[in-house]
Amino acid sequence: MSKLITIAVDAMSGDLGPEVAVPASLEMLRSRDELRLILVGDAETVRRHCGRLGKESARVEIHHADQVVSMEDTPSEALRRKKRSSMRVAVDLVHSGEARACVSAGNTGALMATGRLVLKMLPGIDRPAILAGLPTMQGVCYMLDLGANPVCTPTHLLQFAVMGSVIASINGVENPVIGLLNNGEEDIKGIETVQAANALLSDSHLNYQGFVEPNDVFKHGADVVVCDGFTGNISLKTMEGSADFVYRQMQSYFRNGWFTRAYSLACWPFLRAIKKRLDPNRHNGAALVGLNGIVIKSHGYSNEVGWQQAIHLAMREVEKGLNERIQGLWSNMAA
Amino acid sequence: MSKLITIAVDAMSGDLGPEVAVPASLEMLRSRDELRLILVGDAETVRRHCGRLGKESARVEIHHADQVVSMEDTPSEALRRKKRSSMRVAVDLVHSGEARACVSAGNTGALMATGRLVLKMLPGIDRPAILAGLPTMQGVCYMLDLGANPVCTPTHLLQFAVMGSVIASINGVENPVIGLLNNGEEDIKGIETVQAANALLSDSHLNYQGFVEPNDVFKHGADVVVCDGFTGNISLKTMEGSADFVYRQMQSYFRNGWFTRAYSLACWPFLRAIKKRLDPNRHNGAALVGLNGIVIKSHGYSNEVGWQQAIHLAMREVEKGLNERIQGLWSNMAA
Repeated sequence: MSKLITIAVDAMSGDLGPEVAVPASLEMLRSRDELRLILVGDAETVRRHCGRLGKESARVEIHHADQVVSMEDTPSEALRRKKRSSMRVAVDLVHSGEARACVSAGNTGALMATGRLVLKMLPGIDRPAILAGLPTMQGVCYMLDLGANPVCTPTHLLQFAVMGSVIASINGVENPVIGLLNNGEEDIKGIETVQAANALLSDSHLNYQGFVEPNDVFKHGADVVVCDGFTGNISLKTMEGSADFVYRQMQSYFRNGWFTRAYSLACWPFLRAIKKRLDPNRHNGAALVGLNGIVIKSHGYSNEVGWQQAIHLAMREVEKGLNERIQGLWSNMAA
Repeated sequence: MSKLITIAVDAMSGDLGPEVAVPASLEMLRSRDELRLILVGDAETVRRHCGRLGKESARVEIHHADQVVSMEDTPSEALRRKKRSSMRVAVDLVHSGEARACVSAGNTGALMATGRLVLKMLPGIDRPAILAGLPTMQGVCYMLDLGANPVCTPTHLLQFAVMGSVIASINGVENPVIGLLNNGEEDIKGIETVQAANALLSDSHLNYQGFVEPNDVFKHGADVVVCDGFTGNISLKTMEGSADFVYRQMQSYFRNGWFTRAYSLACWPFLRAIKKRLDPNRHNGAALVGLNGIVIKSHGYSNEVGWQQAIHLAMREVEKGLNERIQGLWSNMAA
């Protein structure tokens, strides 16, 4: 029993709600014997979506929570007025030690604020960051911060580099190459904070290779790319917009006349394959790193695959001792 | 004769050099009777690429320049050591009034610095900005600054909005909608400068609609999108990287086995059509706005279509009196 990893799931969260969150979580339970779930949310609703449980029922617990944080709630509203929400209770369970990690597809700002309030920061780390693994031509690039801190100091960026380096390591990248997002590769490029962070990173023990331009992220210019949360969020949303634009251009090509409409039948398998390759659910799960507890943010539009990716990520971070490693690397560097 | 519009072309510039720049310019001359060209560069080389000229020869002048600004030259090196370069001479011709505008596919930093030194700024405008028209689902979005000024004040952003508004107008957009690039649409989002610029723009006479997120640029969230040069350059390079990534994913799909290789023949016309739709040469020509003279930057990799787009843009800005309009709108707003 001691080997079970307990994950709290905010079962009410996500655009598709418990209808998808609950079955997806249970499916994960069937494929991972070491997983134990606490499904947090309206008990009756959650139970209804559980259906008939077999022998897995021993590894599922339903934890009632009668409030839900909406996408419209501001972080402060969520903290003040939604203390009995499924999100808050899931994070509380991590704080109390009843769960080793939690997963939510809810409001990112509220989740971040709840995490900071309840779990506090990892000793030595000043700010939490949103980290995601982005697909590249040669694998995955771990990029942070994607939106938690619009303004960062050079020290924050150094801490992000440490956290990103550990995340890449536990995902199998040996001695991860760190890059700093900038608008050019030349030394003179960039704003003041980026320049100062470049100096700090160059003096660190990290495997730092210098500036990376956004167009080189996809060419796998580095295993980890560090930036402030404003720039990171702009870049992330530009990626989403660009991929969507290209896909819509492809679709609209087939609306141009009867010939292309007919031709679209021939290209349909190809279009579907490309859409699948670029499906964000396959790369789902942003970690809120730097908190004194493991919190995974699943996409709002997560489908079953997305939820399972996010739970998988939570389990890996627990198994690999993410936070102990971050603290170890950071105190080594500070020493 | 008085109706001729003289454009100076930096004929030595671009990855493909005079071999493409010269024939592309001459082709443009044949289709536009009101165009007169000054081809600036090594006279012998330019003449060789001119081939045999017909009646158009009356509207072509070759202006010798024995230096070339390379992509490796820093802006200050270009200013100090390349005073006889094709780029510098082309800008000088605008300053002296011999040409109404110039077009170069050379080093952007050097072109910007040369423009500022030789032409100076438009009265009332503090900083030049790089502006480009980006394709959207519903037309074109004019975005600036794409890299000239990494750090901007709120007033700079207001001036960019004025310049962008005029550019959109002369390209046929009535009462252009202005948006401010931000990492969210809610009022509380963004960094300090963006917040202050939001207040300035809201109080202005411009058709300002508030924040625009990068993923909404492609959905045509605004006709003009304003941002500082660091953020704009990050966003632009992310777009280039994303589109390239999606295209490479499409190509690599067909390398997976004999069946998909064969299938690729069926999809080939479709792939080619999409590549053409997304070809940056079709949307070529970034204006360096805010200078006291019209300077167009063509992509480094401009092909004939790209060069012609850039010359076309230069002619339109001359015909429509871009700089007089910017000054008019700005002094109206300051009044």
